[in-house]
Amino acid sequence: MDPKVIKIGLVGYGTVGSGVAKILFENAAEITARTGLQLDLARVVDTDTTSKRVFDLPEGLLTDDLDGLLADDSIDIVLELVGGTTFAKDLQLRILKAGKHVVTANKALLAEHGWDLYAAALEAKRCIAFEASCCGGIPIISALRTGLAANQIEGLYGIFNGTCNYILTNMTYEGSEFAEVLKEAQAKGFAEADPTLDVNGMDTAHKLAILGGLAFNCRIDLDDISVEGIEHIDIFDVRSGLEMGYILKLLAIGEKDADGRISLCVHPSFISQHSPLAQVDGPFNAISVFGNAVGNTMFYGRGAGMMATASAVVADIIDIALGTSQRLFETMPMATQTGQKADIMPMGEIESRYYIRIMAKDQAGVFAKYGQVLGKYNISIRGAIQHEWDSPEGTVPVVITTHPTLQKNIDAALTELEELDVIAQKPVCIRIVHIPEDKE
Amino acid sequence: MDPKVIKIGLVGYGTVGSGVAKILFENAAEITARTGLQLDLARVVDTDTTSKRVFDLPEGLLTDDLDGLLADDSIDIVLELVGGTTFAKDLQLRILKAGKHVVTANKALLAEHGWDLYAAALEAKRCIAFEASCCGGIPIISALRTGLAANQIEGLYGIFNGTCNYILTNMTYEGSEFAEVLKEAQAKGFAEADPTLDVNGMDTAHKLAILGGLAFNCRIDLDDISVEGIEHIDIFDVRSGLEMGYILKLLAIGEKDADGRISLCVHPSFISQHSPLAQVDGPFNAISVFGNAVGNTMFYGRGAGMMATASAVVADIIDIALGTSQRLFETMPMATQTGQKADIMPMGEIESRYYIRIMAKDQAGVFAKYGQVLGKYNISIRGAIQHEWDSPEGTVPVVITTHPTLQKNIDAALTELEELDVIAQKPVCIRIVHIPEDKE
Repeated sequence: MDPKVIKIGLVGYGTVGSGVAKILFENAAEITARTGLQLDLARVVDTDTTSKRVFDLPEGLLTDDLDGLLADDSIDIVLELVGGTTFAKDLQLRILKAGKHVVTANKALLAEHGWDLYAAALEAKRCIAFEASCCGGIPIISALRTGLAANQIEGLYGIFNGTCNYILTNMTYEGSEFAEVLKEAQAKGFAEADPTLDVNGMDTAHKLAILGGLAFNCRIDLDDISVEGIEHIDIFDVRSGLEMGYILKLLAIGEKDADGRISLCVHPSFISQHSPLAQVDGPFNAISVFGNAVGNTMFYGRGAGMMATASAVVADIIDIALGTSQRLFETMPMATQTGQKADIMPMGEIESRYYIRIMAKDQAGVFAKYGQVLGKYNISIRGAIQHEWDSPEGTVPVVITTHPTLQKNIDAALTELEELDVIAQKPVCIRIVHIPEDKE
Repeated sequence: MDPKVIKIGLVGYGTVGSGVAKILFENAAEITARTGLQLDLARVVDTDTTSKRVFDLPEGLLTDDLDGLLADDSIDIVLELVGGTTFAKDLQLRILKAGKHVVTANKALLAEHGWDLYAAALEAKRCIAFEASCCGGIPIISALRTGLAANQIEGLYGIFNGTCNYILTNMTYEGSEFAEVLKEAQAKGFAEADPTLDVNGMDTAHKLAILGGLAFNCRIDLDDISVEGIEHIDIFDVRSGLEMGYILKLLAIGEKDADGRISLCVHPSFISQHSPLAQVDGPFNAISVFGNAVGNTMFYGRGAGMMATASAVVADIIDIALGTSQRLFETMPMATQTGQKADIMPMGEIESRYYIRIMAKDQAGVFAKYGQVLGKYNISIRGAIQHEWDSPEGTVPVVITTHPTLQKNIDAALTELEELDVIAQKPVCIRIVHIPEDKE
C-alpha cells in the first residue's frame, strides 16, 4: 500500500521549527512504516530567510512568502511556530480561514485567546492541535483527553517549567543563591535571556489554564489562577524546608473539592521528599494526575527544548493526518464551546499547611507575641526550628510549620505579624502542599 | 446536542468487570459531558450469575446468555474480561464474527495469539482495543502508538508487575526474605493465590511482547524474550546491591542497537538508585521510553487492580465509540500484519555490567583462582565487597561488580567458576542495567 502523502506548511523557522524539520527528514522512514503516512514538509516561511539554523533545509524550501503558503491548496496542515500572541493569533485565524488545520506550541496564545480560536476552528471545520503547548514531548494532552477520559479528575500537580525546576534543584542540592543559578542556567541555555515569564510563574499558569481546562472539563481563564513566582525565594528557606523533609518546587495545582469547586494556583510549594514529584530534577517536567478510578498517575519527560517539543508537534501532525484529531476536536466539549466556566474556589478558602519564617529580634517575649497572633487566627504549630545563632543584626530566623488551616487565616496573621515590633521584616510564607497518598 | 448512545456488552463479571460497571454507572455524567457519549452497559454475561460482586448490577442485567449477547445487534462493543487463552480466544473470534469491536485486558492472549486475532479483526472490519492489557490505568499503549509516533524508539525499561515490585521493595527497605514478603503480599491482596506467572517473569514478558512490538514496530513473539523471575533472589544480594548504590527491580528491557537489532529480556536487574525507575515502589508500575527526539519519558501509575484496569477499559470504549480506535487499528502496521519479525540480538551479544556473588571457602588462594577465571574471559572488576565474617560453614560471600562485558563471557565464566573447588555453591549473577542518561 502506498503511503498517504500529507503536505505540511511551517511558519516560524526558529528552534522548534528546526526540530520539526529534523524529525520530518530524519525519521521519515520510521514514521511511514509506523503510520502509513508520508509527511512532506512542502513550504517553510520565516521573515528571516538567511540566518544559519540548527537544521539546514533543502534549497528553496525556506521563503518569506506567507501568502503563497496560505494559498497553496495542496497543503492541509500548517504549523504555527512563531510564538507571541498578536501576530500568531491573526495567523492562526488566517490558516483556519484558508481551510487548513493548525498545529501549535503556543501556550500563551491558547491560554489567553484559546476560546476565540477554537470557535473559529469549529466554524471552519478544521482543528487546532496543541499537544506541544504543554510539557514538551510528554503526551499529557492526549492522556487527559482520552487516556484518562473514564475518570473524574480530582487533582493535578505539575512541574511545568524547566527553568524554575533547574533553578530550584540547584538551590536545593548545591546551596546556590537564586540569582547565581539563574545566570548559570542562562549560560547553559536552560533559561531565556529574558526569563521573566518563567520565573514569575506565568508560563506555568498558561499551561495550567490549558491542562486544568481539559482535566476538569471547563473553561479556565488566566484570572482564575492565583500566581506567584520564585524570584523572591531565599536559599535559607529552601534549606530549612529540606531540613524538615520538604523539597521546594514551583507547582501548578488544580484541585476539585467535594462540591465541585475548583482551586487553581501556581506558587512555590514545599512537597514531601518522598513524593514522586520531589524526584523530578533539573530541566525535567512532570505531572501527577489523580483520577477517581485510576488513582495516581505521573507523566515525566523533557518539558521544553527543540527536539522534545518537535516530537509533540509531529505527533499532532500524525493525529490530524489520521483523522483522529479532528474527530476529538469536534466531540470534546472543550472545543464545542459548551464547556462551562469553572466554579472557582477563592484562594482564602483553601485549606493547607504552611511554612512560615520570621526574623525575630533577639529579645525576650518574641515567641509570646508571635504565638498570640497565630493563636488568634486558630493557626496551630506542627513543627519549629530555631537554630542557635548569633546574628550581627540581632535578628534570628524562626521557622515554623503549621497544621492545616485556611489560607485567609494565614493571610490575616501575616498582615498582623508584619506590624509586630519584635519582628524585623516581612515574614516568609510558603505553602506545604499535600499530594494525596494513593491507596486503593 | 443529545449524546450518542453506545451499547456495550461485557463477558466475564469478575474484579475488572465490576470496576468497569462501577465506572460506567458512577462516572456516567462526567463521561457524557466530556465526550458527548452515553455509554450503556446493555448486557453482562458470566457463568456465575449469583455470587455477590464488588459492584451490584441493576436487576436482570447479569445473565449467562452469551449467545443472546452476541446476537444482539444493538451492541457495538463487547468487553472480553474472562482471562485465560483458550475460551477467551474463541470468544474474541466470535465477537468479531458477530460484527462487534473487542475491548480486552488479556495480555497473555495477545502476547501468544495476538497475530491471529488482529488478522481476524481486520477481516471483520472491526478492532481490538487493548490499552488495559499493559500497565493498568497508565495510557502507555496510546502513548507508544501516537504520542511518541514521531520518534525512533531506542529503548524501553519497565516495571510491569506490581506483585514483584511490591516484594522487591519490601526486601530492599524492610530486609524481609522473599517467601515472607510473598505471603504478606498475598494476605494484602497484592499477589494472587497462585503467583507463579507474576514471580517467574512471564506476566512481565507478556507485556514486553505487546509494548515492545508497538515501540519497535515489529512482531515480537514470546520466544524472542529471555525471561528470568525473582523466585531465587536472596535478601543478601538485595542488600549488597543497595550498599553499592543499586536498587533491585524486575525489569523488562527492550533496546535497539545501531544496526537495528533488538534485544528483549525480563530479569532481576540492579539499577542506579538515582534512576527515576528506582523510586517506583510497592505495587506501582512505570515505564521509561527513550525516543530519538523526545529523549527520556516516564509513565507511572497503578499497573493492576480493579479500578485502574477498568479505567483503561473504559478509555478504550470511548476511543472505539469516537471512531479513533478503529482508524488507528487499520492504519498501524501492527494490525495490518505487515509488521516484520524483529531482528533479535542473541542474549550472549548483550554488553552490560554485572553483579556476581560467590560463596568463597575461607582458605588461601581463593581470590587468585577466582580472578584467573574472570581474567580468562576478559571480565574486569569495577567494585568489590567482602565483609569480615566468621561463617560457621567456613564460607564467606564475596561480591564483585564488573565493567561492561559480553553476556556470553559472563556465562562462560560462571560455568567455570561453578567447578572451582574453592567456591561452595553456584555463583549468583545479576545484571546491572544502565538506563541511559538523557542529555540534550
